[in-house]
Amino acid sequence: MLWQRYKEFLCDIPEIGLLLDISRMNFDNSFFDSKEPEMQKAFTQMEALEAGGIANPDENRMVGHYWLRNPAIAPTPEISAEIKFTIRAVKEFTEDIHTGELKTPEGKIFKKLLVIGIGGSALGPQFVADSLKSPLNKMTPYFFDNTDPDGMDSVLAEIGTALDETLVVVISKSGRTKETRNGMSEAKEAYSKVGLNFPKYAVAITGNGSELDKTAENEGWIARFPMWDWVGGRTSVTSAVGLLPAALQGIDIDSLLNGAKLCDIATRNRVTRKNPAAILALMWHYATGGKGKKDMVILPYKDRLLLFSRYLQQLLMESIGKEKDLSGNAVHQGLSVYGNKGSTDQHAYVQQLREGINNFFVTFIEVLKDRGQRSMMVEPEITSGDYLAGFLQGTREALSEAGRESITITVEEISPKTVGALIALYERSVGLYSFLIDVNAYHQPGVEAGKKAANTVLETQRDILSFLKNNQPKSFRAGEIAELSGKPEKVEMIFRIMMHIAANPDHNIKMEKAEPVWNSRFRS
Amino acid sequence: MLWQRYKEFLCDIPEIGLLLDISRMNFDNSFFDSKEPEMQKAFTQMEALEAGGIANPDENRMVGHYWLRNPAIAPTPEISAEIKFTIRAVKEFTEDIHTGELKTPEGKIFKKLLVIGIGGSALGPQFVADSLKSPLNKMTPYFFDNTDPDGMDSVLAEIGTALDETLVVVISKSGRTKETRNGMSEAKEAYSKVGLNFPKYAVAITGNGSELDKTAENEGWIARFPMWDWVGGRTSVTSAVGLLPAALQGIDIDSLLNGAKLCDIATRNRVTRKNPAAILALMWHYATGGKGKKDMVILPYKDRLLLFSRYLQQLLMESIGKEKDLSGNAVHQGLSVYGNKGSTDQHAYVQQLREGINNFFVTFIEVLKDRGQRSMMVEPEITSGDYLAGFLQGTREALSEAGRESITITVEEISPKTVGALIALYERSVGLYSFLIDVNAYHQPGVEAGKKAANTVLETQRDILSFLKNNQPKSFRAGEIAELSGKPEKVEMIFRIMMHIAANPDHNIKMEKAEPVWNSRFRS
Repeated sequence: MLWQRYKEFLCDIPEIGLLLDISRMNFDNSFFDSKEPEMQKAFTQMEALEAGGIANPDENRMVGHYWLRNPAIAPTPEISAEIKFTIRAVKEFTEDIHTGELKTPEGKIFKKLLVIGIGGSALGPQFVADSLKSPLNKMTPYFFDNTDPDGMDSVLAEIGTALDETLVVVISKSGRTKETRNGMSEAKEAYSKVGLNFPKYAVAITGNGSELDKTAENEGWIARFPMWDWVGGRTSVTSAVGLLPAALQGIDIDSLLNGAKLCDIATRNRVTRKNPAAILALMWHYATGGKGKKDMVILPYKDRLLLFSRYLQQLLMESIGKEKDLSGNAVHQGLSVYGNKGSTDQHAYVQQLREGINNFFVTFIEVLKDRGQRSMMVEPEITSGDYLAGFLQGTREALSEAGRESITITVEEISPKTVGALIALYERSVGLYSFLIDVNAYHQPGVEAGKKAANTVLETQRDILSFLKNNQPKSFRAGEIAELSGKPEKVEMIFRIMMHIAANPDHNIKMEKAEPVWNSRFRS
Repeated sequence: MLWQRYKEFLCDIPEIGLLLDISRMNFDNSFFDSKEPEMQKAFTQMEALEAGGIANPDENRMVGHYWLRNPAIAPTPEISAEIKFTIRAVKEFTEDIHTGELKTPEGKIFKKLLVIGIGGSALGPQFVADSLKSPLNKMTPYFFDNTDPDGMDSVLAEIGTALDETLVVVISKSGRTKETRNGMSEAKEAYSKVGLNFPKYAVAITGNGSELDKTAENEGWIARFPMWDWVGGRTSVTSAVGLLPAALQGIDIDSLLNGAKLCDIATRNRVTRKNPAAILALMWHYATGGKGKKDMVILPYKDRLLLFSRYLQQLLMESIGKEKDLSGNAVHQGLSVYGNKGSTDQHAYVQQLREGINNFFVTFIEVLKDRGQRSMMVEPEITSGDYLAGFLQGTREALSEAGRESITITVEEISPKTVGALIALYERSVGLYSFLIDVNAYHQPGVEAGKKAANTVLETQRDILSFLKNNQPKSFRAGEIAELSGKPEKVEMIFRIMMHIAANPDHNIKMEKAEPVWNSRFRS
């Protein structure tokens, strides 16, 4: 019976070597029919989006990531030309770096790559870099993806004395992202310290005319590549954001783009049952009641796909996790994603999946090709890869027996083409799902609140520092500082700020510890 | 008012430099009182556990990870002596490796370390290695933590020609873990291929008399360290499992053990409000209704703690995610954990946390010390670290405003001591929480089902391979193989096996593709 169900619902996309199996999701026979009108509507909305409609109404923007792998379908000849021009520029620049046509000021070949970005400007490039790394790569990539000083020190320590052959790629769509600006400043300082002229090692990927763009222009950086307002950060991996680091590393970006394009074609199919993105979107809807009632656990049985769940966490949760629907009703939508890799996770949280709270559905990702060479036998007639495949099937079966649902995606191998296809598959699934639940998948209004609150913290820090400087050498409790500097409502914030700055040498603030700790005194 | 709440509920443990703030959890004033009888009962149960009671009744085992950092409290002098002996052996062995007293057969100093383990034998060592890495480390660690052939090839490629100065540590408590056995076999093959005598590069950590132990003894490996049945995999990081890799890397294991010990002392306190583990356990109970109704999002604002959420995912979900309570009632317990790091995640899924479905509570982890040196100013009076701290406060505030709850743990710095303390804090919290909800936190019965099912897959694979060999050169559909080999109920399994083995050269199986794909034919 399960075999019948497997055959009935299997979606086979031979042109990208992908199978999608939903036989272990327990929807009933009427499910697809009942959803068909909504799905047809979603297809129509997706067509409007691809044709250049304002699919991101809050920000009054088009949503154009599908054009990136097929510039012919862009809504204007200008956009089409810009895309093509940028891909050519990425390839020519990469060629110049690899051949040594473009060298460091000291005449060295660039061998390493430091990518500075965060969120949409880091997770995509990191996923591509890690999933497609090879000993034959031309350049080794490193990432600053946070404003953690110690994290940056660790990366710089890994690069070590090779800084003088390290190309820096700074990525920020807005050109105003603080973490990225800080990373750039810290990198610049590291280059300066060893007597290197940072601009001659630096490339920017950013919106035309942004702060970062101007810095790069004024300082004479090696190159600048564009980001467009019709590409969102979390769907930017097939723009210069993903393509330039990938190409520099030595990844075949034509294949990556082609995989995405072929998947785009397959996922435009208005025959729902033949469209893997439509099927995925419907399964998410089925599993979570269209309201995020269950978590999506991503279990790729392949080390190279370890970062895929982090990439999808951003792509889904930032797109779907919205307060309001498109009519402005409060809906508090979402779809939580987590996971690492199998069979490793079988020795971790799969215990809970099998026996504990049934608050999830799994997406297994299976990769048929084990490795680039023949395998040894670890037992008669059994390879390590047979074990990996056996564990996937075994866990899928064990979950299914216990009434836990799963989807299985099978790809032939991990290659630029399949990675491009997987990215495109999930981009489209998220888009279709957002139409089904009627939310704007292309903005992130909730991110601003945290940034604004952080600005208040930093402003408050500046005020307290002047207050303490003006009152040297007296020491004060947080409560006193709050009162005396006219911010009584900010006392907790001030206490937290004081603890942090007193633990570091940079602002010359001393803490006189007391009990309880909030009675400690601080002085400049 | 929030400041009052902050002060009222702050738990300050100065001896480990840790603050626990629960002011942004919205429990009401009667909560702690109402839970006090249960918590006192949990303390008593924990005392019995620490005294050597059979706290893991299904497996009839004691639960002794707390003894590892304070052998004096072990229930018998023999256990106490074994622990002390092992710590001394780890240190002496490490000293011999670092000084070159123990060299490779070719007389080289061991410079790299390949740890082979999975689950409890990998996540702890990986977390410790990554959180405490330093450019001054004595050895660089690598991990085989899966049975993915391509993953192992990638690690071996990174080690490259340095294999001849790489010490291998194989970790398996049972000595029968297939992924680890496969990793060992593949490593052995890699050493052999370049003419190196694997046993002279290999160390085992395993149960006395296990398969692995016998292999190591028979082949004359360099050293063997014990695992005991009273230490579970996911709480083994302060046994040789975590200590040996850490010590070899160059981490101060005395400090790590001391941090854990000090935290153990603090978390034995029967005054609930002064016991951070008891408070955490109660907050989990409050947030999830004692039934895992919300997910735990772990957000450390520190790159070094990136793997902490993966570590906790195992520790919590494998311990808490149980079908039955201790009386045998079906309860399907659980507590789902995910997260990466801030402020990176603010540019990813924090959009959903702030505005979307409220199905979670956050644990922020703040580290006061930014880095090992002074910082540059990225703006007047502001460092990168000030931004990191500001983003944490800002996000905590923005979530709180939107009714999203959070806990904040503050530690002074990331050091062996605080890492040891964090591990001990969560081990104890999980233990106390398991008593509150009445489940056995120390077994993992659900893991067996997947392993058994995997064995069936591998046995079936062997049978099909003989069937096809015996019927050369005929080709068959999966359905035909299933019928003719007397396994009609296994047709889906067989089809999946065939697709995998036909995609790889190892079993000489060819696939003749057909449409639909399940009509493809296979032959030997």
